[in-house]
Amino acid sequence: MEIGSSCEVSARPKVRVSGSRVLRFDGSFRWAGVEAAAYKEAGEHHRGVTRLQLAGGQGEGIAFHLRYFEIAPGGFSSLEKHEHEHVVTVLRGAGEVRLGDQVHPLGFGDTVYVAAGEVHQFRNPSEAEPFGFLCIVDAERDRPVVVAGQPGG
Amino acid sequence: MEIGSSCEVSARPKVRVSGSRVLRFDGSFRWAGVEAAAYKEAGEHHRGVTRLQLAGGQGEGIAFHLRYFEIAPGGFSSLEKHEHEHVVTVLRGAGEVRLGDQVHPLGFGDTVYVAAGEVHQFRNPSEAEPFGFLCIVDAERDRPVVVAGQPGG
Repeated sequence: MEIGSSCEVSARPKVRVSGSRVLRFDGSFRWAGVEAAAYKEAGEHHRGVTRLQLAGGQGEGIAFHLRYFEIAPGGFSSLEKHEHEHVVTVLRGAGEVRLGDQVHPLGFGDTVYVAAGEVHQFRNPSEAEPFGFLCIVDAERDRPVVVAGQPGG
Repeated sequence: MEIGSSCEVSARPKVRVSGSRVLRFDGSFRWAGVEAAAYKEAGEHHRGVTRLQLAGGQGEGIAFHLRYFEIAPGGFSSLEKHEHEHVVTVLRGAGEVRLGDQVHPLGFGDTVYVAAGEVHQFRNPSEAEPFGFLCIVDAERDRPVVVAGQPGG
Protein backbone atom coordinates (compact mmCIF):
# COMPACT_ATOMS: atom_id res chain seq x y z
CA MET A 1 0.00 0.00 0.00
CA GLU A 2 2.03 2.93 -1.22
CA ILE A 3 1.54 6.24 -2.82
CA GLY A 4 2.02 6.67 -6.55
CA SER A 5 3.87 9.81 -7.47
CA SER A 6 1.10 10.99 -9.76
CA CYS A 7 -1.62 11.12 -7.11
CA GLU A 8 0.26 12.11 -4.00
CA VAL A 9 -0.05 15.84 -4.48
CA SER A 10 -3.68 15.87 -5.52
CA ALA A 11 -4.70 13.90 -2.44
CA ARG A 12 -3.46 16.58 -0.09
CA PRO A 13 -5.66 19.38 1.07
CA LYS A 14 -4.38 22.64 -0.33
CA VAL A 15 -4.00 24.41 3.00
CA ARG A 16 -1.17 23.65 5.34
CA VAL A 17 -1.96 22.81 8.93
CA SER A 18 -1.36 25.61 11.37
CA GLY A 19 -3.46 24.36 14.28
CA SER A 20 -5.74 21.61 15.46
CA ARG A 21 -8.56 20.44 13.23
CA VAL A 22 -11.50 18.07 13.19
CA LEU A 23 -12.16 16.17 9.95
CA ARG A 24 -15.87 15.37 9.84
CA PHE A 25 -16.86 11.89 8.79
CA ASP A 26 -19.80 12.16 6.40
CA GLY A 27 -21.45 8.80 7.13
CA SER A 28 -20.30 7.38 3.80
CA PHE A 29 -16.63 6.89 4.60
CA ARG A 30 -15.51 10.20 3.25
CA TRP A 31 -14.37 13.24 5.25
CA ALA A 32 -15.23 16.85 4.58
CA GLY A 33 -12.35 18.60 2.84
CA VAL A 34 -10.42 15.43 2.08
CA GLU A 35 -10.16 14.57 -1.57
CA ALA A 36 -10.35 10.96 -2.71
CA ALA A 37 -7.50 9.97 -4.99
CA ALA A 38 -6.66 7.00 -7.11
CA TYR A 39 -4.40 4.63 -5.24
CA LYS A 40 -1.62 4.74 -7.84
CA GLU A 41 -1.32 5.21 -11.52
CA ALA A 42 -3.52 2.78 -13.39
CA GLY A 43 -1.94 -0.62 -13.76
CA GLU A 44 -2.59 -4.28 -14.07
CA HIS A 45 -1.40 -5.18 -10.60
CA HIS A 46 -4.17 -3.51 -8.59
CA ARG A 47 -7.86 -2.74 -9.04
CA GLY A 48 -10.51 -0.54 -7.48
CA VAL A 49 -8.44 1.10 -4.73
CA THR A 50 -9.13 4.63 -3.46
CA ARG A 51 -6.91 6.53 -1.04
CA LEU A 52 -7.62 9.46 1.30
CA GLN A 53 -4.90 11.19 3.27
CA LEU A 54 -6.28 11.99 6.73
CA ALA A 55 -3.13 13.20 8.47
CA GLY A 56 0.51 13.76 7.62
CA GLY A 57 2.29 15.44 4.74
CA GLN A 58 0.34 18.64 5.28
CA GLY A 59 2.68 20.64 7.44
CA GLU A 60 2.32 18.65 10.63
CA GLY A 61 5.34 17.56 12.65
CA ILE A 62 4.23 13.95 13.01
CA ALA A 63 6.52 11.10 12.00
CA PHE A 64 3.65 9.13 10.42
CA HIS A 65 0.87 9.39 7.85
CA LEU A 66 -2.71 8.25 8.40
CA ARG A 67 -4.54 7.22 5.26
CA TYR A 68 -7.93 5.63 4.59
CA PHE A 69 -7.96 3.05 1.80
CA GLU A 70 -11.05 1.62 0.26
CA ILE A 71 -11.16 -1.36 -2.06
CA ALA A 72 -14.23 -1.81 -4.25
CA PRO A 73 -15.91 -5.22 -4.54
CA GLY A 74 -13.62 -7.49 -6.53
CA GLY A 75 -10.69 -5.14 -6.08
CA PHE A 76 -7.22 -5.65 -4.68
CA SER A 77 -4.07 -3.73 -3.87
CA SER A 78 -0.72 -4.57 -5.40
CA LEU A 79 1.02 -7.71 -4.23
CA GLU A 80 4.12 -6.01 -2.95
CA LYS A 81 6.82 -5.71 -0.34
CA HIS A 82 8.93 -2.93 1.17
CA GLU A 83 11.07 -2.24 4.19
CA HIS A 84 8.57 0.06 5.87
CA GLU A 85 5.88 -1.46 8.04
CA HIS A 86 2.10 -1.06 7.90
CA VAL A 87 -0.43 -0.87 10.68
CA VAL A 88 -4.00 -1.31 9.45
CA THR A 89 -7.36 -1.17 11.26
CA VAL A 90 -10.53 -2.13 9.39
CA LEU A 91 -13.37 0.41 9.43
CA ARG A 92 -15.74 -0.71 6.68
CA GLY A 93 -17.01 -4.01 5.34
CA ALA A 94 -14.85 -7.09 5.18
CA GLY A 95 -11.97 -8.37 3.12
CA GLU A 96 -8.75 -10.25 3.47
CA VAL A 97 -5.03 -9.75 3.66
CA ARG A 98 -2.33 -11.95 2.22
CA LEU A 99 0.75 -12.03 4.44
CA GLY A 100 3.49 -14.13 2.90
CA ASP A 101 1.77 -17.35 1.85
CA GLN A 102 -1.15 -17.03 4.25
CA VAL A 103 -4.51 -15.33 3.75
CA HIS A 104 -6.41 -13.93 6.73
CA PRO A 105 -10.05 -12.78 6.64
CA LEU A 106 -10.58 -9.30 8.06
CA GLY A 107 -13.58 -7.49 9.51
CA PHE A 108 -14.33 -4.38 11.53
CA GLY A 109 -11.67 -3.49 14.07
CA ASP A 110 -9.21 -6.19 13.08
CA THR A 111 -5.75 -4.69 13.25
CA VAL A 112 -2.88 -5.90 11.09
CA TYR A 113 0.82 -5.31 11.57
CA VAL A 114 2.70 -5.96 8.31
CA ALA A 115 6.36 -6.56 9.10
CA ALA A 116 9.28 -5.21 7.08
CA GLY A 117 9.85 -7.16 3.88
CA GLU A 118 6.61 -9.14 4.14
CA VAL A 119 4.92 -9.78 0.80
CA HIS A 120 1.35 -8.59 1.26
CA GLN A 121 -1.88 -7.72 -0.51
CA PHE A 122 -5.29 -6.48 0.60
CA ARG A 123 -8.33 -7.80 -1.28
CA ASN A 124 -12.08 -7.42 -1.34
CA PRO A 125 -13.67 -10.66 -2.53
CA SER A 126 -17.20 -9.48 -1.72
CA GLU A 127 -19.71 -8.63 -4.43
CA ALA A 128 -21.39 -5.64 -2.86
CA GLU A 129 -19.70 -3.88 0.04
CA PRO A 130 -16.56 -1.75 -0.12
CA PHE A 131 -13.71 -2.84 2.16
CA GLY A 132 -12.19 0.13 3.95
CA PHE A 133 -9.36 0.48 6.43
CA LEU A 134 -7.06 2.96 8.08
CA CYS A 135 -3.40 2.43 7.19
CA ILE A 136 -0.59 4.08 9.13
CA VAL A 137 2.98 4.28 7.86
CA ASP A 138 6.13 6.16 8.75
CA ALA A 139 6.34 9.52 7.02
CA GLU A 140 9.80 8.57 5.76
CA ARG A 141 9.63 5.28 3.94
CA ASP A 142 10.95 3.34 0.99
CA ARG A 143 9.07 2.68 -2.21
CA PRO A 144 7.19 -0.61 -2.64
CA VAL A 145 8.36 -3.33 -4.95
CA VAL A 146 5.60 -5.09 -6.85
CA VAL A 147 5.90 -8.86 -6.62
CA ALA A 148 5.12 -10.97 -9.68
CA GLY A 149 2.06 -13.12 -9.29
CA GLN A 150 -1.53 -13.59 -10.27
CA PRO A 151 -3.30 -10.25 -9.79
CA GLY A 152 -5.70 -10.60 -6.91
CA GLY A 153 -4.89 -14.30 -6.71
CA MET B 1 -3.51 11.39 26.26
CA GLU B 2 -0.25 9.99 27.47
CA ILE B 3 1.10 6.90 29.01
CA GLY B 4 1.62 6.73 32.73
CA SER B 5 4.86 5.11 33.70
CA SER B 6 3.13 2.65 35.97
CA CYS B 7 0.92 1.12 33.31
CA GLU B 8 3.06 1.24 30.22
CA VAL B 9 4.75 -2.08 30.70
CA SER B 10 1.65 -4.03 31.66
CA ALA B 11 -0.20 -2.87 28.56
CA ARG B 12 2.32 -4.49 26.25
CA PRO B 13 1.93 -8.03 25.06
CA LYS B 14 4.72 -10.14 26.49
CA VAL B 15 6.05 -11.42 23.19
CA ARG B 16 8.12 -9.23 20.93
CA VAL B 17 7.10 -8.88 17.33
CA SER B 18 9.17 -10.91 14.91
CA GLY B 19 6.78 -10.95 11.96
CA SER B 20 3.40 -9.80 10.75
CA ARG B 21 0.36 -10.34 12.93
CA VAL B 22 -3.40 -9.90 12.92
CA LEU B 23 -5.01 -8.67 16.13
CA ARG B 24 -8.57 -9.97 16.17
CA PHE B 25 -11.30 -7.56 17.19
CA ASP B 26 -13.69 -9.36 19.55
CA GLY B 27 -16.86 -7.40 18.79
CA SER B 28 -16.69 -5.60 22.14
CA PHE B 29 -13.83 -3.22 21.37
CA ARG B 30 -11.13 -5.42 22.74
CA TRP B 31 -8.52 -7.38 20.78
CA ALA B 32 -7.34 -10.92 21.46
CA GLY B 33 -3.99 -10.86 23.25
CA VAL B 34 -4.06 -7.14 24.03
CA GLU B 35 -4.37 -6.31 27.68
CA ALA B 36 -6.47 -3.33 28.79
CA ALA B 37 -4.61 -1.01 31.11
CA ALA B 38 -5.52 1.96 33.22
CA TYR B 39 -4.86 5.17 31.36
CA LYS B 40 -2.47 6.56 33.98
CA GLU B 41 -1.96 6.29 37.67
CA ALA B 42 -5.14 7.16 39.51
CA GLY B 43 -5.64 10.87 39.89
CA GLU B 44 -8.18 13.62 40.20
CA HIS B 45 -7.64 15.01 36.76
CA HIS B 46 -9.05 12.15 34.70
CA ARG B 47 -11.76 9.54 35.10
CA GLY B 48 -12.80 6.26 33.51
CA VAL B 49 -10.14 6.00 30.81
CA THR B 50 -8.83 2.65 29.54
CA ARG B 51 -5.89 2.23 27.16
CA LEU B 52 -4.90 -0.60 24.82
CA GLN B 53 -1.64 -0.62 22.90
CA LEU B 54 -2.34 -2.01 19.42
CA ALA B 55 1.01 -1.34 17.75
CA GLY B 56 4.37 0.13 18.65
CA GLY B 57 6.73 -0.34 21.56
CA GLN B 58 6.79 -4.10 21.01
CA GLY B 59 9.86 -4.55 18.89
CA GLU B 60 8.55 -3.02 15.68
CA GLY B 61 10.56 -0.49 13.72
CA ILE B 62 7.70 1.97 13.32
CA ALA B 63 8.09 5.61 14.35
CA PHE B 64 4.59 5.74 15.88
CA HIS B 65 2.35 4.03 18.40
CA LEU B 66 -1.28 3.07 17.79
CA ARG B 67 -3.43 2.96 20.90
CA TYR B 68 -7.16 2.49 21.52
CA PHE B 69 -8.59 4.63 24.29
CA GLU B 70 -12.00 4.18 25.78
CA ILE B 71 -13.71 6.64 28.07
CA ALA B 72 -16.57 5.37 30.23
CA PRO B 73 -19.83 7.35 30.47
CA GLY B 74 -19.14 10.49 32.50
CA GLY B 75 -15.40 10.06 32.10
CA PHE B 76 -12.72 12.36 30.73
CA SER B 77 -9.01 12.41 29.99
CA SER B 78 -6.65 14.92 31.56
CA LEU B 79 -6.85 18.50 30.41
CA GLU B 80 -3.28 18.73 29.18
CA LYS B 81 -0.81 19.92 26.60
CA HIS B 82 2.47 18.71 25.14
CA GLU B 83 4.70 19.28 22.16
CA HIS B 84 3.85 16.01 20.46
CA GLU B 85 0.78 15.86 18.25
CA HIS B 86 -2.20 13.51 18.33
CA VAL B 87 -4.19 12.00 15.52
CA VAL B 88 -7.47 10.47 16.68
CA THR B 89 -10.21 8.57 14.82
CA VAL B 90 -13.44 7.68 16.64
CA LEU B 91 -14.47 4.02 16.57
CA ARG B 92 -17.11 3.68 19.28
CA GLY B 93 -19.98 5.79 20.58
CA ALA B 94 -19.79 9.54 20.77
CA GLY B 95 -18.07 12.15 22.86
CA GLU B 96 -16.36 15.46 22.55
CA VAL B 97 -12.94 17.03 22.41
CA ARG B 98 -11.85 20.32 23.89
CA LEU B 99 -9.24 22.04 21.72
CA GLY B 100 -8.09 25.27 23.29
CA ASP B 101 -11.28 27.06 24.30
CA GLN B 102 -13.53 25.25 21.85
CA VAL B 103 -15.48 22.03 22.31
CA HIS B 104 -16.29 19.84 19.30
CA PRO B 105 -18.75 16.92 19.33
CA LEU B 106 -17.31 13.70 17.93
CA GLY B 107 -18.87 10.58 16.45
CA PHE B 108 -17.81 7.56 14.43
CA GLY B 109 -15.06 8.24 11.94
CA ASP B 110 -14.42 11.83 12.95
CA THR B 111 -10.69 12.41 12.84
CA VAL B 112 -8.95 14.95 15.04
CA TYR B 113 -5.49 16.43 14.63
CA VAL B 114 -4.30 17.97 17.90
CA ALA B 115 -1.52 20.43 17.17
CA ALA B 116 1.64 20.84 19.23
CA GLY B 117 1.03 22.78 22.44
CA GLU B 118 -2.76 22.72 22.11
CA VAL B 119 -4.59 22.35 25.44
CA HIS B 120 -6.96 19.43 24.91
CA GLN B 121 -9.25 16.97 26.64
CA PHE B 122 -11.45 14.10 25.49
CA ARG B 123 -14.76 13.59 27.32
CA ASN B 124 -17.73 11.26 27.32
CA PRO B 125 -20.81 13.16 28.47
CA SER B 126 -23.16 10.27 27.63
CA GLU B 127 -24.87 8.20 30.28
CA ALA B 128 -24.69 4.78 28.69
CA GLU B 129 -22.24 4.21 25.85
CA PRO B 130 -18.46 4.11 26.06
CA PHE B 131 -16.60 6.55 23.82
CA GLY B 132 -13.69 4.85 22.06
CA PHE B 133 -11.09 6.09 19.63
CA LEU B 134 -7.79 5.23 18.04
CA CYS B 135 -4.99 7.62 18.97
CA ILE B 136 -1.71 7.73 17.08
CA VAL B 137 1.40 9.46 18.40
CA ASP B 138 5.07 9.56 17.56
CA ALA B 139 7.03 6.83 19.33
CA GLU B 140 9.44 9.47 20.62
CA ARG B 141 7.51 12.16 22.42
CA ASP B 142 7.54 14.50 25.37
CA ARG B 143 5.56 14.02 28.55
CA PRO B 144 2.21 15.80 28.94
CA VAL B 145 1.71 18.72 31.27
CA VAL B 146 -1.61 18.72 33.11
CA VAL B 147 -3.37 22.07 32.87
CA ALA B 148 -5.17 23.43 35.90
CA GLY B 149 -8.92 23.62 35.46
CA GLN B 150 -12.22 22.10 36.38
CA PRO B 151 -11.91 18.32 35.90
CA GLY B 152 -14.08 17.36 32.95
CA GLY B 153 -15.38 20.90 32.76
